[in-house]
Amino acid sequence: MLEKLKKEVYEANMQLPKLNLVTFTWGNVSEIDREKGLFVIKPSGVPYEKLTPDDMVVVNLKGEVVEGRLNPSSDTPTHTVLYNAFPSIGGIVHTHSPWAVSFAQAGVNIPALGTTHADTFYGDVPVSDALTKEEIESAYEENTGKVIVRTFHEKDLDPEAVPAVLVRQHGPFTWGKDAKAAVYNAKVLEVVAQMAYHSLQLTRADIKVPQFLLDKHYYRKHGKDAYYGQNNAHSKNHAKKI
Amino acid sequence: MLEKLKKEVYEANMQLPKLNLVTFTWGNVSEIDREKGLFVIKPSGVPYEKLTPDDMVVVNLKGEVVEGRLNPSSDTPTHTVLYNAFPSIGGIVHTHSPWAVSFAQAGVNIPALGTTHADTFYGDVPVSDALTKEEIESAYEENTGKVIVRTFHEKDLDPEAVPAVLVRQHGPFTWGKDAKAAVYNAKVLEVVAQMAYHSLQLTRADIKVPQFLLDKHYYRKHGKDAYYGQNNAHSKNHAKKI
Amino acid sequence: MLEKLKKEVYEANMQLPKLNLVTFTWGNVSEIDREKGLFVIKPSGVPYEKLTPDDMVVVNLKGEVVEGRLNPSSDTPTHTVLYNAFPSIGGIVHTHSPWAVSFAQAGVNIPALGTTHADTFYGDVPVSDALTKEEIESAYEENTGKVIVRTFHEKDLDPEAVPAVLVRQHGPFTWGKDAKAAVYNAKVLEVVAQMAYHSLQLTRADIKVPQFLLDKHYYRKHGKDAYYGQNNAHSKNHAKKI
Amino acid sequence: MLEKLKKEVYEANMQLPKLNLVTFTWGNVSEIDREKGLFVIKPSGVPYEKLTPDDMVVVNLKGEVVEGRLNPSSDTPTHTVLYNAFPSIGGIVHTHSPWAVSFAQAGVNIPALGTTHADTFYGDVPVSDALTKEEIESAYEENTGKVIVRTFHEKDLDPEAVPAVLVRQHGPFTWGKDAKAAVYNAKVLEVVAQMAYHSLQLTRADIKVPQFLLDKHYYRKHGKDAYYGQNNAHSKNHAKKI
Repeated sequence: MLEKLKKEVYEANMQLPKLNLVTFTWGNVSEIDREKGLFVIKPSGVPYEKLTPDDMVVVNLKGEVVEGRLNPSSDTPTHTVLYNAFPSIGGIVHTHSPWAVSFAQAGVNIPALGTTHADTFYGDVPVSDALTKEEIESAYEENTGKVIVRTFHEKDLDPEAVPAVLVRQHGPFTWGKDAKAAVYNAKVLEVVAQMAYHSLQLTRADIKVPQFLLDKHYYRKHGKDAYYGQNNAHSKNHAKKI
Repeated sequence: MLEKLKKEVYEANMQLPKLNLVTFTWGNVSEIDREKGLFVIKPSGVPYEKLTPDDMVVVNLKGEVVEGRLNPSSDTPTHTVLYNAFPSIGGIVHTHSPWAVSFAQAGVNIPALGTTHADTFYGDVPVSDALTKEEIESAYEENTGKVIVRTFHEKDLDPEAVPAVLVRQHGPFTWGKDAKAAVYNAKVLEVVAQMAYHSLQLTRADIKVPQFLLDKHYYRKHGKDAYYGQNNAHSKNHAKKI
Repeated sequence: MLEKLKKEVYEANMQLPKLNLVTFTWGNVSEIDREKGLFVIKPSGVPYEKLTPDDMVVVNLKGEVVEGRLNPSSDTPTHTVLYNAFPSIGGIVHTHSPWAVSFAQAGVNIPALGTTHADTFYGDVPVSDALTKEEIESAYEENTGKVIVRTFHEKDLDPEAVPAVLVRQHGPFTWGKDAKAAVYNAKVLEVVAQMAYHSLQLTRADIKVPQFLLDKHYYRKHGKDAYYGQNNAHSKNHAKKI
Repeated sequence: MLEKLKKEVYEANMQLPKLNLVTFTWGNVSEIDREKGLFVIKPSGVPYEKLTPDDMVVVNLKGEVVEGRLNPSSDTPTHTVLYNAFPSIGGIVHTHSPWAVSFAQAGVNIPALGTTHADTFYGDVPVSDALTKEEIESAYEENTGKVIVRTFHEKDLDPEAVPAVLVRQHGPFTWGKDAKAAVYNAKVLEVVAQMAYHSLQLTRADIKVPQFLLDKHYYRKHGKDAYYGQNNAHSKNHAKKI
């Protein structure tokens, strides 16, 4: 079942080591078929070099395994919560990429300091609250999802506009319209974390970008007025013709 | 048309991932044919692994597409302004290379701290002013070019002697006599940014190099008295013969 | 003799350059056959590209060479002390991996700042005391082992729960149930050192993780209640089934 | 002439890009035949991928080209001064490796902070004085050699015991008994610079290693009592035999 989706999720998972986002097995990607209400996710603890499309596990929106020989990622309950809470997202990535983890461990938001950030994230990438003792000791991975959702609600953030979070003391989750987009966002997050780290060491000045730069760069690539690339709404019109 | 130039611009673009200067599609290179008043530039948002010489787009000095199936880089208006304002330059590169971006985001010039810098940049590499709300909201990419030109005029800098700028909150543009030279300068910029970052963290002393070191190293490689390498004016004479 | 073990130790050694943990010959791995009371270790100063399984050296628990054409690693006496003092460990790794060495040289423990750390190390990774003049001038490598053991005794640490140490002014030793596990721990140590370094530069806040997070993450992967991956005690039960 | 030496110098030069020590053409290696009083050096500004053994240039101890189609490295006068002043050295390397350059630009010695350093460098690696205006404007490369020699004389350093220097505002030179050893030392220098940088950021404590650790580690690998590896004086005796 869902053979095409399994292949896509497999390929998205294989991008993680290629983009230097994972050490050992520390990452997972899923994608959902919204019509069927099922998502496909990487199995737990299987090395990337041994992974095949057939190893992918099919899970429903209650977090129950519907098909698959192997155990799904131990983070499956987190993915389940996010798919239920954020109906517009189609793919989710979790990694322990080192620059993003460094901010998550420090409890410091990745501030929007430039256009590289603004092209993908419409504002700071937030750090969630730390999980409490009770949240960690019972249904830990499910509560990880819940603290992400709570962070977005409390800060009034749109998960489409800021498709990433840093779970405090843990690491990044990113998402997107599909698995491939979520992987893209995971890489951008790592790169902007690296850039922000060095900018913050170079100066103590307030270097956050203004709202109008966020507006310009984010909407240059997203939404009805986007003109970057070859396929956005205004791509063809943007170039001046002779 | 301009088949040879397209091939050279294609090859210069393909150097960017090879030199670790780009993530995804975040870079572009152009080169101008000054006699024809036309420049060739990378198309917008096309992955490097799919790029071919035929994908290159031909643009005139009004920024109008003269030939090409694809949309040119969204930064085309910036290239256009620079070619018009700096008549001695033949090629332009834009990247989001992480060390240079870190300085651009911090609003800190890359100071001339050593011979690696002085061999290519005759003084600090400046950060431009930030674009204003008005400059960002209308003709954004064109205004990016204008703020670069304004920076060089206000600081009385020679674009041949300092072939690079950091657009504040954005990232580096470099240039040179052709596309290949501009790519070379883009790599040097990234390396000297990395070195300068670490030097600045190691000490609070004033470590800028003196003017006479800038003079020596810059003119060892550039201009009528250059003697570095095999083909400069004084290369042959510099080596003592038995 | 011990041909299978030699092959495993050879392969574990070859993982060190593959995982970017060594420069030149600066690393060694051993594994013990507890029944025979013999361990197999890399020869001293042989480049990885020339290493073969046959080059491995067999050593007894008095540190005497039992078989082998080549001299064993100069760190053999350190391995000997550790195998004698920590009866539960089966493999040992020593490297000069740069992030771990940076903490060892600074004399700063690698603090437990997140789940990446807690998944493998049940608490801070300690720096040992510096060796005294007397300890360095006689039986240096043996005393290196003794100072590690003393550090674990004085801090009342369980070498199974914290399978790593930073020898002050020197670098990391890690261990595990076998050579492969010790290599895994050597890589995790390097990654968490890198993450901790950057987190510590980002903030002066107290960011150590609480005990209950250490408990959760460590025991998610280790011991009788482990459920991460495919083969732990509760792996199968952890996934909810439809 | 000197075909064997040319091949060795060629191979030593080709190690520089392989060990990630050079960008573009920014490095050179030479080795001397002391009996003939001639040294072989890389030509100036030739890309590594185009280099052949035949391109190597033969120079005498007055710095005059004795054989070679191409111009020798522009740093040839520096090599000449060092071969004349330090009669025990057989090979010299110059690079712009980024960690070593960062210390050179900062004017900060690379302090001896651990065994990785002490295994190769018997004490801090010194930064030279800056060249004066007069020294830069006439016979610049020769004066670079002279300031290195002056630094070693003033600090009473033995070039065999500390086979490296950081020319202030410029970068590292290393040397050794032959070209291969000098390249080895160039890589060690870069690694210990990287480690020292991070250690110095982690703490403000005095973390220099004591003299007895320098003695132990340096003489474990060098001189008549060396026992590291397979071929040193005491290698065979060091390992305990059953």
